[in-house]
Amino acid sequence: MQNFDYQTPTRLIFGKGVVEQLPEVMAQFGKRILLTYGGGSIKKIGLYQKVLELLKGFEIVELPGIQPNPKYDPSVLDGVRLCKEHKIDVILAVGGGSVLDCSKAIATGACYDGDPWDLISYKVKAQASIPIVDIITLAATGSEFDPGGVISRTETNDKIGYVDKLNYPRVSFLDPTYTFTVSKKQTAAGIADAMNHTMEQYFAEDTTLLNDGFCESMLRSLMVNGRKCLENPEDYTARAEMMLCCTYGCNRILSLGNSQSGWPCHGIEHALSAYYDITHGEGLAIITPRWMKHILSERTLPRFVKYGINVFSIDASLDKWEIARKAIDETYAFFESIGIPMHLREVGIDDSRLDEMAHHIAVNEGLESAYVPLDEKAIKEILVASL
Amino acid sequence: MQNFDYQTPTRLIFGKGVVEQLPEVMAQFGKRILLTYGGGSIKKIGLYQKVLELLKGFEIVELPGIQPNPKYDPSVLDGVRLCKEHKIDVILAVGGGSVLDCSKAIATGACYDGDPWDLISYKVKAQASIPIVDIITLAATGSEFDPGGVISRTETNDKIGYVDKLNYPRVSFLDPTYTFTVSKKQTAAGIADAMNHTMEQYFAEDTTLLNDGFCESMLRSLMVNGRKCLENPEDYTARAEMMLCCTYGCNRILSLGNSQSGWPCHGIEHALSAYYDITHGEGLAIITPRWMKHILSERTLPRFVKYGINVFSIDASLDKWEIARKAIDETYAFFESIGIPMHLREVGIDDSRLDEMAHHIAVNEGLESAYVPLDEKAIKEILVASL
Repeated sequence: MQNFDYQTPTRLIFGKGVVEQLPEVMAQFGKRILLTYGGGSIKKIGLYQKVLELLKGFEIVELPGIQPNPKYDPSVLDGVRLCKEHKIDVILAVGGGSVLDCSKAIATGACYDGDPWDLISYKVKAQASIPIVDIITLAATGSEFDPGGVISRTETNDKIGYVDKLNYPRVSFLDPTYTFTVSKKQTAAGIADAMNHTMEQYFAEDTTLLNDGFCESMLRSLMVNGRKCLENPEDYTARAEMMLCCTYGCNRILSLGNSQSGWPCHGIEHALSAYYDITHGEGLAIITPRWMKHILSERTLPRFVKYGINVFSIDASLDKWEIARKAIDETYAFFESIGIPMHLREVGIDDSRLDEMAHHIAVNEGLESAYVPLDEKAIKEILVASL
Repeated sequence: MQNFDYQTPTRLIFGKGVVEQLPEVMAQFGKRILLTYGGGSIKKIGLYQKVLELLKGFEIVELPGIQPNPKYDPSVLDGVRLCKEHKIDVILAVGGGSVLDCSKAIATGACYDGDPWDLISYKVKAQASIPIVDIITLAATGSEFDPGGVISRTETNDKIGYVDKLNYPRVSFLDPTYTFTVSKKQTAAGIADAMNHTMEQYFAEDTTLLNDGFCESMLRSLMVNGRKCLENPEDYTARAEMMLCCTYGCNRILSLGNSQSGWPCHGIEHALSAYYDITHGEGLAIITPRWMKHILSERTLPRFVKYGINVFSIDASLDKWEIARKAIDETYAFFESIGIPMHLREVGIDDSRLDEMAHHIAVNEGLESAYVPLDEKAIKEILVASL
């Protein structure tokens, strides 16, 4: 078991109607709020109006239009400028993981005099940040319970995971009813995202019996409840459990004491969505089973056998290799069954830039130290198999 | 799924050698430290000397001699007095859960002008507390990751669970090597304590697939690793995993969104150890299977079936009642196999005060709203069955 240092100070306020507590929560942090959100779905579900009504008496500056795979330019830069101009006390992010990720980059950027990219690229260590509160409307990334965010810089095809302890949200409001209107496509992508977050921690060299059980429980619950959410989008219990599962995805609570796996699927997917701006969860679902096939070996076999038996209830009396292969097939089949396009070509990626992407990943993502080390050739093979 | 409001700000610093970070951690909170500890086992393992060496330059006031089932008088009262006299900045609790529990009562008591019992008995709400840091030397209670403590008042046979958000430890140091010298008796009691913490959350009306899996993983890991700790007390990996399991016991992370179970075994056991000062974990192990037998019914059957299949790998094709009864028998057998005396008489409790205790429990522990409601008659029956 590995040493670790863990702290998640975020307060989770979870359940139907909890947003009523917003004024009391925001008042702890000040009067001047930067309200960040995306393309307007929060207006369609009436949450935008509800928030403005609840926050009468606060000074609100808005940063709308934050895109999926949030962009450094203009979103982060605009947000930083607004925070400085209006002396913002607290950021309220309302939406999915992208809005929150972007808000995190803004939070530290606004307390720094130079170019915020210095912080995101770890050239300079941030010294302070503006407090962040969020209301999450999409079960997927787990950003509401972790200090990280992913920011894309279009001109350089960079998509960087930016993690700073300063950026734990202070309070996350999670009302599952806000996810009732999430489309089937985005619901499925959220399931795949959270499942992959779990797998990235499960497939590691040194794990514990405890964490293995936590991860397996996550995967089983995400599959059962995810399916229910797709069948009946207003199934409160299923939406609620899926939301809580997603919250745990990147918080490390599933793998304290495990050795680091290097998060290889994320490393590969970041390039896909940086080059082609595809949906992150779909990219992960496409990559995952191909990556699994690639890394299956005598050494990793026991992990796949455990995964197959405990997650997919594959008959433990079968041959070990058969269990492992079945487990990978079941992974693929599950993603396909929830409607995810399982080939890169289906999401608009052809073979024209595979070499370039494989090179970019090999240089930037550190996958030579992953659970199973991946060099440029291996990455290319996984990409080709995913076409 | 139930609404919830969750926040655990405690920082966990876990692993071999982490105590070297103590000076840096303590310096955040000030110079004047109240060092609390128990009967001297920390001197035997050299930890006391190590702490004093690391904290050269700090002003240290000592409160030794805190007993298991920590006492309001003298320990809490002495601690409060010392904090006030010496204007203590931070409490450093070194030892097991009792030392830490006692320190929590001291922490709020020291910031209150009246009788600290007003706070413990919830007559008055605490407004402030002294920060607490701990170094845990016993894997059992989970006090290092929760805001609660249990305090006994001998003259009234009160044993009160005192919970206040102010009392989350700021930092908990967990070095599994400090548990190498824990006796077989205390190791077994710690396993039973953490297992019961998990069961008190698992046996509830409304649970989630996710939490059920978390709890089942806890129970399996505690049994496997607990046994290894007993067989080889210096098995680092087993001690480490057992320590992490215990840390999660009372933190609510195993049951967010579940309905409240009422923690009935704890309600009963608190009276046993208040009247007879027995080892808490042993009391829980004795009560648990008798309580299970008492509450097994058509309504609770599915829970016991799930428990039996997923925790003890009982053949799922058997008759449901058979699975449930086997599961209860396996629970008893496990506790017995790790050397716990499984009858009240073996820990010095005869039938002379059962009526008095049953009455005390019925009046004070609120078990009429437990998962399966327990009145005085039911409590008495469980106690009699435990003799």
